[in-house]
Amino acid sequence: MSVLIKNIIFDNGEGDIFIEGNKIGKIAKNLNLKADEKIDGKGEKVILPGLINCHCHSAMNLLRGYADDLPLKNWLEKKIWPLEAKLNEEDVYWGAKLACLEMIKTGTVCFNDMYWHFKHPEVTVSAIKEMGLRAVVGLTMFDSVAEGTKEVVEKTYSRVESKYVQSIVFSLAPHSIYAVSRENLIWAKDFAKKNNLLLHVHLSEIEKEAKDCFKKYNLRPVEFLNKMGFLNKNCILAHSIWLSDKEIKILGERKCNVVYCPCSNMKLASGFFPYKKLKKAGVNICLGTDGAASNNNLDMFEEMKFASLLPKIKEKDPTTAPASEIFEAATKNGAGALKMDIGEIKEGKLADLILIDLNQICLAPGHNLISDLVYSCSGNCVTDLICNGKILMRDRKVKGEEKIIREAAKRADNLAS
Amino acid sequence: MSVLIKNIIFDNGEGDIFIEGNKIGKIAKNLNLKADEKIDGKGEKVILPGLINCHCHSAMNLLRGYADDLPLKNWLEKKIWPLEAKLNEEDVYWGAKLACLEMIKTGTVCFNDMYWHFKHPEVTVSAIKEMGLRAVVGLTMFDSVAEGTKEVVEKTYSRVESKYVQSIVFSLAPHSIYAVSRENLIWAKDFAKKNNLLLHVHLSEIEKEAKDCFKKYNLRPVEFLNKMGFLNKNCILAHSIWLSDKEIKILGERKCNVVYCPCSNMKLASGFFPYKKLKKAGVNICLGTDGAASNNNLDMFEEMKFASLLPKIKEKDPTTAPASEIFEAATKNGAGALKMDIGEIKEGKLADLILIDLNQICLAPGHNLISDLVYSCSGNCVTDLICNGKILMRDRKVKGEEKIIREAAKRADNLAS
Repeated sequence: MSVLIKNIIFDNGEGDIFIEGNKIGKIAKNLNLKADEKIDGKGEKVILPGLINCHCHSAMNLLRGYADDLPLKNWLEKKIWPLEAKLNEEDVYWGAKLACLEMIKTGTVCFNDMYWHFKHPEVTVSAIKEMGLRAVVGLTMFDSVAEGTKEVVEKTYSRVESKYVQSIVFSLAPHSIYAVSRENLIWAKDFAKKNNLLLHVHLSEIEKEAKDCFKKYNLRPVEFLNKMGFLNKNCILAHSIWLSDKEIKILGERKCNVVYCPCSNMKLASGFFPYKKLKKAGVNICLGTDGAASNNNLDMFEEMKFASLLPKIKEKDPTTAPASEIFEAATKNGAGALKMDIGEIKEGKLADLILIDLNQICLAPGHNLISDLVYSCSGNCVTDLICNGKILMRDRKVKGEEKIIREAAKRADNLAS
Repeated sequence: MSVLIKNIIFDNGEGDIFIEGNKIGKIAKNLNLKADEKIDGKGEKVILPGLINCHCHSAMNLLRGYADDLPLKNWLEKKIWPLEAKLNEEDVYWGAKLACLEMIKTGTVCFNDMYWHFKHPEVTVSAIKEMGLRAVVGLTMFDSVAEGTKEVVEKTYSRVESKYVQSIVFSLAPHSIYAVSRENLIWAKDFAKKNNLLLHVHLSEIEKEAKDCFKKYNLRPVEFLNKMGFLNKNCILAHSIWLSDKEIKILGERKCNVVYCPCSNMKLASGFFPYKKLKKAGVNICLGTDGAASNNNLDMFEEMKFASLLPKIKEKDPTTAPASEIFEAATKNGAGALKMDIGEIKEGKLADLILIDLNQICLAPGHNLISDLVYSCSGNCVTDLICNGKILMRDRKVKGEEKIIREAAKRADNLAS
């Protein structure tokens, strides 16, 4: 399988790009190679690395708009959890398909998922494989839920291990320090180390978590995790809002990855992510949308705008979190966190790319491409998407999209009634 | 001229709508009337009032992405003002056309403009007329600029008065209390009263304005304006961030309209709009995008999401500024402020309407339409737009859009070089 993209605009000029298998084979001017598929940018489309969503709960797309504007406790206990309790495997499958479709249509090539994949994460993996995206699928641990105990997770992992493909890998996802015991967190970090898995955890999303941890252990959450040897470059810590200066220093020293989810943090009133301090401490800041129930979309373009604007008003400084820095958070930094060889356009890298037609209103008059992408465009600006060398969207059309939207609507209707 | 829209979804069921001239003539089931144009919603499109942008600087669309992430003083003095000084009337014309095109493509039917229309606001009016939108065009006063003095503005007004059309009217727009003297503000409010014009003013966008005012007059800005009899239901006060409780009370008593511009306030780090307090005081809260140099788009759908999410995180309360309230701010409240008979779908109202195809990813699975529109969709979800009874966009196509984008790019290139 090969793709030749002609007359495309790079950051340093126009040229062609040849994709061989799942990799970027060659970038040059006037490439005349035979290819299975061809795209002509006509000098009017720009090529960029696809965006990387480092924290989401894909199947929750079925819950988009189901409950909003509620106090956190009511939202979770009276609306979200009761509905989730009704989800079956088919629902999870269609929810994940809907999420993948949305990501493809808004320029995301790779995502870091955490959800109840029940005893069969294969359901989610099937959905992702069919849609063609790259993903890290978390095996979620949650002490009080049967499917989330270490025994079930261990068994599940030994069953699915053999099903690894290069584009979809598993991570271990202990939900949080309040939903997983100290003993089980230690088990998780050892298990992750032994099997070379990433760890994906919610960290200090709400103030109560930090306070309760201190009360129980006389340590703040990061100190608590650090003491048990949990923290390293394979840790992906979602939200990471309520952090002391000491905790931020530790996260930098341990080379952790934090996932900034501004829309969710604002919508749920969780708190202000300490962008400036984390950046200064050298922590790898990535971007995530969180689930569609708390965002309510998976559009990483919109997320970039929120990500850049929120620290400016918080720090009373319009120079904070400039567009170029946020664009890196959504590409390069995400690739680093997920240990995927993507996020940049270079020969030899995996071919996870997006094309954007420059003749669009959000890109006019065109003073600065990155500024326009971060501050002016939504994910709808993406015209074509290639993931792992395959064209998943061409001129905004994705195979089977009508059916996915129809099925999801039907299932959501049943669930809500 | 008449338009018949068949099989369209309203908030209370499906039906047809007949537009006669520039008004909504009839809403009923199974309407079989002859019409010049026909749209079939096929039971898959929803109809809504078009959005109303209550504060923008249309021609600044030519400056989108020209300068970002800079301290306010540098941004204005080193980048924006020098570029604006180079603008000629043709630039203003194409900038306004580009802005109108963007608004049409993102569901805005009416806007409240404030810009240097030079001695000839007819240029901007021409652009708006050609594009077909409804607007209030401000005659900007700015003591230190020749075109902004009361003498020039008065002359201009007496010339353009006769050119009023129902869909485009003039307002008087003294820039701000720091750019226009006390004496000239008093002249402005008298002139506005005499000619029944709306007043459009920047108010307390930055803290310094409030502090300087207090130093000079021993009054805060709202107290200062109130004392001179400036404040009433015809005042549209853009930004309105740095307000004391006493000032908020006065704005409520005087039935003023304030324009909340969350993206601009965040991007320029201006401060947090006191949404909750203003709402409680009964002030009419409208929404605006501000200019494309400080947003950087005119997408009112995106603005609604920012408008709803920012007060939630500020007040630490996810129930603040719910979706339905913000949708009203972007429709009904805007219509009230601009004294236009739009913002609702009722027989007899002016026909300023948008259609949205429900088979879109941002609206799936479809639990709650208003939530999906505010939290999940961007302005790209709008498929058709009707303003003043005329179809300006059909299936996302607007007449002449390619040419406008091309011309704007050419002019921006010249200006920046």
